[in-house]
Parts: sequence; C-alpha cells; structure tokens
Amino acid sequence: MEDSNGIAYQRGRFLPVEEVNVSILDPAFSKSDVVFDVVSVWDGRFFRLEDHLRRFRESREYVRMKSPYSEDKMKQILAQCVDRAGLSEAMVYMLCTRGSYTGGGAIGDPRSCENEFIAYSHPYYWVVPRERVKTGVHLWLAETCRAPNSAINQKTKSFNRMDLTRAQFEALDAGADAPVLPSTDGFLTEGPGFNLWIVKDGRVLTPGDNMLEGITRLTVFELCSLLDLEATTANLTAEDLQKSEEAFISTTGGGIVPVTRVSERAIGDGTPGQISCTLRDLYWAKRAEDWHTTSVSGLLASSAESLAGTR
Amino acid sequence: MEDSNGIAYQRGRFLPVEEVNVSILDPAFSKSDVVFDVVSVWDGRFFRLEDHLRRFRESREYVRMKSPYSEDKMKQILAQCVDRAGLSEAMVYMLCTRGSYTGGGAIGDPRSCENEFIAYSHPYYWVVPRERVKTGVHLWLAETCRAPNSAINQKTKSFNRMDLTRAQFEALDAGADAPVLPSTDGFLTEGPGFNLWIVKDGRVLTPGDNMLEGITRLTVFELCSLLDLEATTANLTAEDLQKSEEAFISTTGGGIVPVTRVSERAIGDGTPGQISCTLRDLYWAKRAEDWHTTSVSGLLASSAESLAGTR
Repeated sequence: MEDSNGIAYQRGRFLPVEEVNVSILDPAFSKSDVVFDVVSVWDGRFFRLEDHLRRFRESREYVRMKSPYSEDKMKQILAQCVDRAGLSEAMVYMLCTRGSYTGGGAIGDPRSCENEFIAYSHPYYWVVPRERVKTGVHLWLAETCRAPNSAINQKTKSFNRMDLTRAQFEALDAGADAPVLPSTDGFLTEGPGFNLWIVKDGRVLTPGDNMLEGITRLTVFELCSLLDLEATTANLTAEDLQKSEEAFISTTGGGIVPVTRVSERAIGDGTPGQISCTLRDLYWAKRAEDWHTTSVSGLLASSAESLAGTR
Repeated sequence: MEDSNGIAYQRGRFLPVEEVNVSILDPAFSKSDVVFDVVSVWDGRFFRLEDHLRRFRESREYVRMKSPYSEDKMKQILAQCVDRAGLSEAMVYMLCTRGSYTGGGAIGDPRSCENEFIAYSHPYYWVVPRERVKTGVHLWLAETCRAPNSAINQKTKSFNRMDLTRAQFEALDAGADAPVLPSTDGFLTEGPGFNLWIVKDGRVLTPGDNMLEGITRLTVFELCSLLDLEATTANLTAEDLQKSEEAFISTTGGGIVPVTRVSERAIGDGTPGQISCTLRDLYWAKRAEDWHTTSVSGLLASSAESLAGTR
C-alpha cells in the first residue's frame, strides 16, 4: 500500500484521515469535551503502547467517559490505522469523545451520552524543527500561565489548549521556537507537547505539577536510572532554568532535545549540554533496541488468529 | 419555509446545521482554537446584536484571529441563518476558527493561518430547565475551579470548557440544576452559560473577575439603573451566596432566573426573591418593547438594497 497522510477509524470504518469530521454541534467540538493520547511508531514498532493506553484510560476516568471498546480492540484498531496507511514512522492518535446529548445538542445531562472512540495515524512529526535535536532549541518564558490542575487537570490529555496557543504566539513573535508556561503560582510547567528538564549540580530536575506526565518524561527517569543520574521533580522558577547548567525537553514528537537558549539568555555556553546529548542519544539507541516496543505487524498477526471467524 | 433545527453558513454556502463539520485535523478541534459568540432572537428580533458583535470582535482580537468578513457581512449571514431556518426564537452562533496550519496539520506557525467564519442558527434553548424561570434554580457550589484569566481569559468566549463540564457533573450528581465555580483564589465566578448575582443589604452584586462578561449581565446593570437599584461588582464567597437575601443568574439562554437553593441550603425563604422577580419580569417586558433589538427581516431588507447587483 502506498504511503498516505494517515488512516482513521470512526464508527466501524477505516477511512482517510482527511475525511473524518466532527459535527459543529458535537460537544467534542462545542465544549472540547474529548480526551486523547498519542503514541509514536518508529520503524514499525509502537513505543510504550501500554503506558499510553494506561494514561488514556486515566484521562477517560477523570472526565468520566467509557470507551465503547476493550483495550485489546483499541490496540487492534491503532495497529490497523498504521498498517493501512503504510507508515513505518507515525503518530497514532486515540480519542474518546463525549457523544451527543439527548436531543442532539449540548444542553442536558452529559452523564447519559454514548461516548465514542476515534483513532488515526499521521506521519511522524517533530514538535520543534527537526534540526534542533542536534543544534538545540530556543525556548521562550511565556507570560501566559498554564491552567492549574484545580481547574483543568493537566494530567488529563485534552484539547483545552488556549493557554498553550497564546504562549506559542509569544514565543514565535520573539523569534524563539516554543514557549514554556509558568503555573499561576509562578513555577515552570511545560510547553506545547513537551516536558521541561534542567540539570543543576549534576542532578536532573523536572516540574511535578500542573503539567502532563509525559511518557517520554517517564522514559527520561528510566534513562537517568540506567546512567546512574539522580532525577527528581522540583519546583523550578524561570531563574532556575536560565541559570541551569543544561536544559532539555522531552516529547513523543522528537524524543529528547537539548535547550540552548531561554528567552534572551544562553544556557551554559550556548551549545547542547553533555548530559542532554547523552540522554538524547541513549533514547534513540534504546528505541532501536526494541526497548518498550510493540511490533505493529506482530499485533495484527496475533489478532488475526483470535479474531478469525468473529467478523 | 418550514421550521428546522437550524441553518448554518460555512465557506460561502448555507446548509442544514447537522451537515456542518470540522475536520479532526483542524486546530479548531484538535486545539480548540476557536472563539465564538451567541446572540438570541426573540419574536423575530436579535437582542443586543451590536454588543455581541463587539464581544466577538474582542474575543478574536485576544486570540489574534481576523474574520474574513466585515461586521456588516457577518450580520447579513446571521440574519440569513435565522430567516432560512424559519425560526422566530433562536440562538445564533458566530464562530471564528484558526484554520489549518501550513501543511494541513497543527504543527507550525499559527500566525499564518487563514481564519474562517462559521455561523448557524439553532432553536432557542434554556440553559436551565425552563420551569425554573418561575420556580427558581438549584445551584451547586462546585469544587472544580474556573481556569483563571492569566491562563485562559474568560472574557474571551471559547470552547475550553473542561472545567465547566466537570463542575456540571458535580451539580447533576448532587441533584442540583447547575454548578457555580470558584476561582483558584476562592471567589465565585460563573456557571456554564450564566453569570451569578446576589442581593445583599438591598444592593445587587456580581463577580467581576475570571468570568465571561455576559451581555445579559450588562443588561442587568441597565435594568437595575432603571429601577434605581445599586448594582456593582464584588468579590463574592460561597458564604456570601448561601447567606444572601436573594440570588439569581443571568443568561442569553433564559434571561434572568431566580436562585432558590445553593447546595444544601435554601436562599431566603426558598422561593424566588422579590428583586429577582422584578428584574426577570422587567427583562421580558423590555424585550417585548423592542429594547436593544434589531429586526431580522429589517436587516435582510436593508441589505437586499445594498447588495443588489453584487452577486
């Protein structure tokens, strides 16, 4: 099959992702009442599929949605979306939407909605320009705050991103690559699609509140452990970041990327730091070793058996 | 023409609202990067159309979007959506979406997107059950906070509503009609689709921060002035609300509705308050007098002339 822009699954059908729409009356649009997750595929293998499914389950639980499918069935659908698109490097989205309220609008009782599951594959992408993985990224200290967990729980992956988008305008206007948002109480949180890390006195530190608990962030903790580096959460200020020995970001869309500049200030000597580069390289080396991976074709083969005769 | 569920306008075409969709790849869905407003029509007349258009403009300015159409053209489209649906009582939505990023996804520079305008009419609805306008509404003090303006500016009408929806679950679980959300610093803000008011020592008070500046809220200020009542903004706590002499809500979807119960506690003697009822009745009396209204058919007639020959 030829490469495509991605294949989606919606209401029992696989179709080109460009053809999948949501009604403007659907609360998934008109209230952004939807949770999601994105798992990457590299060289035909999902990375940490079980962790993404666990987080997707936790997101659904927080917003009180139920997927109409079992996790096994969802895995099969995700694998099909990748396989049918002919993509060996992909981002694979899984969404759960509230579904229509009785009467079809968005007034009434959200508890009685029939929640829906949508999935799609998309060619792999980098949340910052790809060359930054080598040269380092320029972050911007945004003024726009990340909404706090007490209002919008950032552990729950949602499309409520007005704060991130506003901060992105700030960063781009300043000529930087991406913003980092403070919490409303003044500590750093995250940027659009990535977690933040600094190196201070040889320790590796990352925010612990009001941000998504990234799966690549989890991976960084494990890689640090393999390297005998101490990694922990900490309340970090803008000054901590700007005066750090090193800094880097972690993301499904690009792995580990060194930070070389924050607002008007260079980090260290302005080149990617040593610990950052070691983690970045180890990340890709481990992925090449099939660490935490699940083969797309293997998943499909295993189910061909179990599904035989169930159509 | 027969009544319908509403007529929409998208990309130069009028069509049934049920047929209007947004791609799941559109940042209007995948980042909830869209602002909107809703103006009501009663007895064939828009209420405070200019005020809604002003607020819609301010929302676009905050998120840095430009409508592809002039305000005159947008007015014409809104009027057409109502007229073509045959609705004399309607909610009329106007949306501005970011539009696709270069390359069609949501990675890249949002500054270069071509923003889009969508409008639609919908039969008029009540944000709380209609009978509550007479009998009074039961509000619930939610634990979920409203996201603060420093993160998501609530003066900007957006679909970033995860906090409102979570609070709605709290209210419905408790058997109440709707929630009121606190700010992260502990003052009351608003509920889904309405502003909150209390009467204390004969003065009429409403929150001033971290909530939408409702057009019906603006109307309440004017009605209070007509009645020689002092109305002002104030930091209100849950206790202020529960111990108030009277309370009411204001909304485009139902006007002014008395509050008779807040969580487990009755307001006053548990029946609609006198000032609340006076304001409610004056609201509907003024609307019947064509106060602040614009005739849908008048708008269409005036443009038939100015548009003649421009098709």
